[in-house]
Amino acid sequence: MAENVENAGPIVVSEGPFRGWLTWGAGEDPFETAIGPFCFRGAGPDVTCAFEPKRSHLNGGGTIHGGALMSFADFCLFAIGHEALAGAKAVTVAFHCEFLAPGGLDETIEARGEVLRATRSLVFVRGLITQGRRSLLAFSGTLKKIAA
Amino acid sequence: MAENVENAGPIVVSEGPFRGWLTWGAGEDPFETAIGPFCFRGAGPDVTCAFEPKRSHLNGGGTIHGGALMSFADFCLFAIGHEALAGAKAVTVAFHCEFLAPGGLDETIEARGEVLRATRSLVFVRGLITQGRRSLLAFSGTLKKIAA
Amino acid sequence: MAENVENAGPIVVSEGPFRGWLTWGAGEDPFETAIGPFCFRGAGPDVTCAFEPKRSHLNGGGTIHGGALMSFADFCLFAIGHEALAGAKAVTVAFHCEFLAPGGLDETIEARGEVLRATRSLVFVRGLITQGRRSLLAFSGTLKKIAA
Amino acid sequence: MAENVENAGPIVVSEGPFRGWLTWGAGEDPFETAIGPFCFRGAGPDVTCAFEPKRSHLNGGGTIHGGALMSFADFCLFAIGHEALAGAKAVTVAFHCEFLAPGGLDETIEARGEVLRATRSLVFVRGLITQGRRSLLAFSGTLKKIAA
Repeated sequence: MAENVENAGPIVVSEGPFRGWLTWGAGEDPFETAIGPFCFRGAGPDVTCAFEPKRSHLNGGGTIHGGALMSFADFCLFAIGHEALAGAKAVTVAFHCEFLAPGGLDETIEARGEVLRATRSLVFVRGLITQGRRSLLAFSGTLKKIAA
Repeated sequence: MAENVENAGPIVVSEGPFRGWLTWGAGEDPFETAIGPFCFRGAGPDVTCAFEPKRSHLNGGGTIHGGALMSFADFCLFAIGHEALAGAKAVTVAFHCEFLAPGGLDETIEARGEVLRATRSLVFVRGLITQGRRSLLAFSGTLKKIAA
Repeated sequence: MAENVENAGPIVVSEGPFRGWLTWGAGEDPFETAIGPFCFRGAGPDVTCAFEPKRSHLNGGGTIHGGALMSFADFCLFAIGHEALAGAKAVTVAFHCEFLAPGGLDETIEARGEVLRATRSLVFVRGLITQGRRSLLAFSGTLKKIAA
Repeated sequence: MAENVENAGPIVVSEGPFRGWLTWGAGEDPFETAIGPFCFRGAGPDVTCAFEPKRSHLNGGGTIHGGALMSFADFCLFAIGHEALAGAKAVTVAFHCEFLAPGGLDETIEARGEVLRATRSLVFVRGLITQGRRSLLAFSGTLKKIAA
């Protein structure tokens, strides 16, 4: 299962286009360090996630690879669900998405979403990844809290 | 949408642990070049997909990042659906998965699956990613053929 | 695949708690006649769907059966996607949902949603089924237009 | 969430085409009594589920309503997951399906599947609904055990 480092808490990005935004342990999550950075800011229903698309995110057709968008969506589940998790460590249990339109290199890729429900053990999140005025990916996921 | 380079056709891997296996345009798909290589071999119901997990695939918890598994699953949709696509270019329309167990660095990660149905415009695929005897990720996806 | 009778057009409900709302061919869709009626009203982003829960919708635990909620969600895909379909006949290709809380017999069950994207052949819809202040089911689906 | 009456245990069907098969509390689950009966038999990987399609299962297009197939699929999650649940009460947390082909009234509708993984609190199941040689619906679901 996809684990997060929630128990470590998000850190403030110190430089670059997302200076002042939050991310998790840059360098501590090798995959997200390799394909990111993925960042977020805001609280409650106003959490916004973002990343700058690069050539290394492209597929053979010159658009953003679906795997890159899904990896960002998985990050977003934890960013949007951050407050509901309240410091608890969690893993992704199930994930679903619809690919609505291809992404490119022209603008920042963002995402917003909401916690649908938080129970004692599960957090249900859904969101939408956009680029400019285009909706790229609609996603939803179920997070399960695990003992620290 | 996640595009593939099917119209270019898979190429034979010339070196490394997957020599003789097939992959798509190494170098032509920047994202898969960065996080792969992802390879496949076999035909019909006996298609097997594989990749060697590396440190760069890990999340902050020391297990394979969910995004890495989902990116590999997206590759698998096209590998398993390869014959049904019959050279047509295609994009991923919808994707779903359940995270069953965490992956590590100990063994090759593999996947097998099946084409559930192929219609004039859609190909429905499902599969299972495993590592040794552990099932890591169950996935299913809908591919849509697009005009070349 | 789940077909709809969109090409016949929705009809106005003439009596009961949803008088003045719209539904499809009451009596022409045996399953929805048996477990419904399911109705909708409004246009654009303000489409609201509803049904009155009855004892025949309950499961063995005394709450609304998941299958009843999923059947209503499938109806909602077509109601919310109604304008985007513009009279075209369509079938459900893929469906996903998360069960957030159990439903009961105390209040009308409603749903609202949005068309995420409408292409030449596909319509992507997502929505949320609620009962009073409780969210019961989050759902998303892909509809494919078919030749009349 | 969709509850089951697992803690009551399945009962043997005493008459009709599924005499000798198992079902849950006929009459105790009003929805399944109304649209069923849904039955199952076998154990381990050889669980088979079935129901006889009737006119009341049809949609406006004369094929089996998607909601009827999804309701049967929800029943199948519990039938296939029956042994893994080991008497524990459970609810459906998430459900996904792809509609592969329309069903009709010509033959019994069946389903087979497998438990992908059973953890302390979750059971992951996937299956395939068929009619004769046609695959109608591929489905997967996550069940969560709840305190009795």
